[in-house]
Amino acid sequence: MDVMSSAAARAGVEIHTDTRGSALVVDADGRVTGLRAVRFGDSVHYRARHAVVLTTGGFADNEAMVGDHAPALLGHGTVSDGLDDGSGILMATALGAATRRLAAVQAALAFVPLMACHGLIVNARGERFINEDVYPGRFSQAALLQPAPWWVILDEEGYDSMTPEQRMGVEPRFGAESASELARELGMPEGALERTLELYNEGARVGVDRVHHKAPRWLRELAPPFAAFAPMPAGGPHGLSGFTLGGLRTDADGRVQHVAGHAIRGLFAAGRAASGIHGEGYVSGTSLGDGTFFGRRAGRAAAAGV
Amino acid sequence: MDVMSSAAARAGVEIHTDTRGSALVVDADGRVTGLRAVRFGDSVHYRARHAVVLTTGGFADNEAMVGDHAPALLGHGTVSDGLDDGSGILMATALGAATRRLAAVQAALAFVPLMACHGLIVNARGERFINEDVYPGRFSQAALLQPAPWWVILDEEGYDSMTPEQRMGVEPRFGAESASELARELGMPEGALERTLELYNEGARVGVDRVHHKAPRWLRELAPPFAAFAPMPAGGPHGLSGFTLGGLRTDADGRVQHVAGHAIRGLFAAGRAASGIHGEGYVSGTSLGDGTFFGRRAGRAAAAGV
Repeated sequence: MDVMSSAAARAGVEIHTDTRGSALVVDADGRVTGLRAVRFGDSVHYRARHAVVLTTGGFADNEAMVGDHAPALLGHGTVSDGLDDGSGILMATALGAATRRLAAVQAALAFVPLMACHGLIVNARGERFINEDVYPGRFSQAALLQPAPWWVILDEEGYDSMTPEQRMGVEPRFGAESASELARELGMPEGALERTLELYNEGARVGVDRVHHKAPRWLRELAPPFAAFAPMPAGGPHGLSGFTLGGLRTDADGRVQHVAGHAIRGLFAAGRAASGIHGEGYVSGTSLGDGTFFGRRAGRAAAAGV
Repeated sequence: MDVMSSAAARAGVEIHTDTRGSALVVDADGRVTGLRAVRFGDSVHYRARHAVVLTTGGFADNEAMVGDHAPALLGHGTVSDGLDDGSGILMATALGAATRRLAAVQAALAFVPLMACHGLIVNARGERFINEDVYPGRFSQAALLQPAPWWVILDEEGYDSMTPEQRMGVEPRFGAESASELARELGMPEGALERTLELYNEGARVGVDRVHHKAPRWLRELAPPFAAFAPMPAGGPHGLSGFTLGGLRTDADGRVQHVAGHAIRGLFAAGRAASGIHGEGYVSGTSLGDGTFFGRRAGRAAAAGV
């Protein structure tokens, strides 16, 4: 950020803080020529020399928009700076801008990744649903489609094999002398967690996770006593938090597309105000990455007036 | 439909077929005053006496829109008349109309419901994911979140207990002398279907489906030989077909809402062009129901000019 901030300062960029855009200004031909905003409580207008580039973030903090477009996040925690109000998306769609994948969300379920690798991730029914050694953004995304709460189940040997630092300070929420006792404590249906463990152990004995293909290096028969670990707190009741990924439809130079298929002249977007490169899930850094990469392209295209 | 068509005829409604709306016409104040359309190949304009009511259906037939907004349907069959092109949604969003839940879809997985009740519905990993005696729209919706292909697993006694009419002509795709042999034929992970059957049978013996709560009347220990049934063909490779549920945000009188929160004057929508009353899934008849109920309200509000 220092590199970018000082480059902006050297280039003579003027930064107006406490200034919130409220509407885009268009000329008679529909070209975006400026912005109406509120600055220190006063209404102000900005005339764009070339174009407006919207980099206002997603809409995780706009509960009405989350309910309308990304209901998977309802009831979970929010990862944001508190200002992801969707304002850029709203200002552009007021002009007929197209959106893309507004329902897509990033989800983060804060299990200790190494602990998950050593054990099982299960849903409220005691069922596995993914290989635990996968990228955590992936198991979090998968958890969104499973009944909560979600747990990491680990045995004593697995717990002892980790240093306190590796455990990141996370201690068991429940412990029990058998799988059945643990399942009862967790309110799981009788017999389900037991079957999950049997199947996992049967595979572990021959070094193959037949159902979810966890790497053989993590496979080890799990034996009682067992413990259940909850995710680290993250705002929501089930330890899951996230933000929205969908946004304005742009081309590779950040030009905002109209629903009729043409670019809206004078209007660009980048970062989470745009739908960017995401599909259904998230990979760490791709928000920063597509913010800077497509933001730079959008800035250059806007400056060139093309 | 006869009742409605003859009521329309009696009221002197003029019906123009082979006429496709392409854009809404607005006056200088942004009020919708008419429609541009193509009729028998010629461009025509309609002036609205009071308002325009969009009842153009969803967008299941517009592959670009499905990819942008409802990717869950990609690769599956489509339930539509072939003209669900999203045109009404596009015409209204060009004016800044708000949308709601564009990602929501109806899904129909054509298992024989009674056969499912007698057996198990499992995913590609041999896992159950829902009570089989639920409303079929519900098990279809749940299947969308599970790895395909999906199967109904039934034993001989269950099959024999049904008449040919009850079976609706559906015959087994695979049969086997044991659960393990059937799982191999279906390409399921070793041991998984066996565990699913064990857990189900354990519950059936005491009359309780502990994991998914199927009604006790359907519970019976399933014993080899077993058969696997595929859904009836429905367009997609996995026998699932559907349509889009999301659409324009309206109030209870069908007034299309602008993203800024006010109603767009002179513009109404009903049926699948609107988001209607759906949440994440579908209940048979609610498209027809909210089409007629909210369509009538929209028509009355439009005629009253309010």
